[in-house]
Amino acid sequence: MLKRIDHIGIAVKSLDEALIFYKSIGVSPYHFEEVESQKVKVAFVRVGESNIELLEPTSPESPIAKFIEKKGEGMHHIAYEVSDIKNALEVLKSQGCQLIDNEPKVGAHNKLIAFVHPKSVSGVLTELSQDMGGH
Amino acid sequence: MLKRIDHIGIAVKSLDEALIFYKSIGVSPYHFEEVESQKVKVAFVRVGESNIELLEPTSPESPIAKFIEKKGEGMHHIAYEVSDIKNALEVLKSQGCQLIDNEPKVGAHNKLIAFVHPKSVSGVLTELSQDMGGH
Repeated sequence: MLKRIDHIGIAVKSLDEALIFYKSIGVSPYHFEEVESQKVKVAFVRVGESNIELLEPTSPESPIAKFIEKKGEGMHHIAYEVSDIKNALEVLKSQGCQLIDNEPKVGAHNKLIAFVHPKSVSGVLTELSQDMGGH
Repeated sequence: MLKRIDHIGIAVKSLDEALIFYKSIGVSPYHFEEVESQKVKVAFVRVGESNIELLEPTSPESPIAKFIEKKGEGMHHIAYEVSDIKNALEVLKSQGCQLIDNEPKVGAHNKLIAFVHPKSVSGVLTELSQDMGGH
């Protein structure tokens, strides 16, 4: 049911500084965007079938700014592509896993997404996503 | 030069409890081992071309036990497969990245591995690995 790691979200203070490592090792960002609702600027780097999503806060109110303040820069969440997100959420719920989103919501890039609470995934904030196609 | 995410290492208090999420969502561990030098028990789960490496400390002296004590359970490191690890280390060094291992060492599964310091990768402990073949 888990098809692949879609992306690893990494909280960083500065996209420019964070990108030094990836550029050095031969991968350049292929997409930048600003997500107003989360108060972040994002850069995407592709690695195989997965992506690294670098998240820089644009305001001290950003959840990413608060994460960095509390834990420092570092891995923030992991996102898996699943084949059937509704079914995945139902199964997880039936197994006693704590969900942040009981129902999938529409995310960026025409995807259905839902978050699972870190309490049920060994402290890892976990996003599930299902591609709805039609890009 | 980065071919794929080889694995994400996750520090957990209990493999059995950690595996509930992965089993619920349809993926079972395909390999278990104990790594004496790191004082950990490890379970591997495959996701697409990558793996989740769950690490449970077997002693309070384990680096993973200390990580959990300090930061709680959660993502511990990310490992990338590279095509030429020696070249990767040289390039990173020349770009001013701080390396933990200046030279690759032989790791498990006939791989050459080396760690890059989290300071140079936005707080992410980063492992590079190169498959030497001959499994």
